Formats: sequence, C-alpha cells, structure tokens
Amino acid sequence: MVVMSLDPKIADRLKRNSDGLVPAIAQQYDTGEVLMLAWMDDEALHRTLTTGRATYWSRSRQEYWVKGESSGHQQWVKEVALDCDADAILVKVDQVGAACHTGDRTCWDADVLEPVVGERPQ
Amino acid sequence: MVVMSLDPKIADRLKRNSDGLVPAIAQQYDTGEVLMLAWMDDEALHRTLTTGRATYWSRSRQEYWVKGESSGHQQWVKEVALDCDADAILVKVDQVGAACHTGDRTCWDADVLEPVVGERPQ
Repeated sequence: MVVMSLDPKIADRLKRNSDGLVPAIAQQYDTGEVLMLAWMDDEALHRTLTTGRATYWSRSRQEYWVKGESSGHQQWVKEVALDCDADAILVKVDQVGAACHTGDRTCWDADVLEPVVGERPQ
Repeated sequence: MVVMSLDPKIADRLKRNSDGLVPAIAQQYDTGEVLMLAWMDDEALHRTLTTGRATYWSRSRQEYWVKGESSGHQQWVKEVALDCDADAILVKVDQVGAACHTGDRTCWDADVLEPVVGERPQ
C-alpha cells in the first residue's frame, strides 16, 4: 500500500495549534547543535517521514518548504520523534552548510543574551 | 538600577504569538540533549535571565512555572539566545534529573517515529 498522507496512527495523536501547525526543532544528529525551529502541518510531517528531507510549512510564504531546495542547505533526515504531549517534533538531521538564512550555522548564533548563570547545588 | 521587567532592548525585538508567547527550547548545555519545548512570555524570559532558573508560562495552568519547583528537577541556566527572527528562544541549562514530567530524561524519548532516512550525497 502506498501511503499518500500522514499515517492515521500518528495524525490521531498529533496536537496542532489553531493554525494546524506543530513546532519542529531541527538538531544536527551527530554534534547535537540545535539548528532552527520551524513549523509542520500533517503533510509536512508526512513528507519529512517519507522523503528523507526535512520539509516544513512556511508561514511567511504559505507553502511547503523543502529545506535547502533553493539554498542547497538540505537537511537529510536521521530521526524523528514526537514529544510527550505530541505537540512538538524533534527532527535529527544531517545539515548541509548553514541552517540559518543569514548564513550562520544555527539560528541562535547571532543574538546571544547575557543571563545570570545558575549553578546546580553540590 | 534594579530592572523589574524584561530589558526593553530585548522586549523591542521579541516576536510573540497571538497569546503573547514565544517557544523556548531547553537543551542540556554539555551533552547537547534537547530536553523539552515550553513557552515564555516577557516576564518568564525576564525571570529566566535574572534568576539562574529556567521559568516558563504554563499554558495548562495559566501561571508561571519555575521548572523543578515541585519536582526538584530544576534547570540551571547557562546560556540564552534569541533566534534570527527573535521568535524562538534557546535556553542551555544544567538539567537535574528528568526533564519530562513522565520521568524520561527528555520529552522525545518515548514516541520515536520511523522515518525514511536520508543520506547526504557524497
């Protein structure tokens, strides 16, 4: 059987926001770098699970976005998991080049804040 | 000067959803494990930056949630950054014990999907 849309067993437990979207965190599978956060609907998750390429829903362009299709900075899918509430997705990928559209490796490289650092009690 | 609320320079660029919230990814600072995704408003980010303890807005309880306050599974803040669009926060923490309310170390340990794995072209 060719599955044409998201497996109903997954769709049944996925919890979407009011726009039908779920936040998806992309992480480099070997180094652990958190690369970016984007959004998936059912179809984007289906494509991510079945094509080997991380695919998102672009809220700004209102279209599916195969990461790297225009930039060449593809995300090759290694692992995918839903969180305990099924309302957040973790996608472990092999990121080619920069994950961020600014050219930075990750989307959190440029705007680092200065927190008070906490220390775990000994 | 004692800063009583989020630094205006940060608040000015923070992009919130229609509920005034921003997704925050908690990552173990040394191992790179992605622990959980939760939500912050301005005040939760302010507390996270100034107390050394990761603090979220609980959408289910509609109250501030100092992670570990009841469970003992605190998150001691090491680094905080905004992403390129200032609409997602990465908080690197030292997580005591389990990050997930289920008792798992991370919120993505239990519901692992089976993607088609992609391979970067050689």
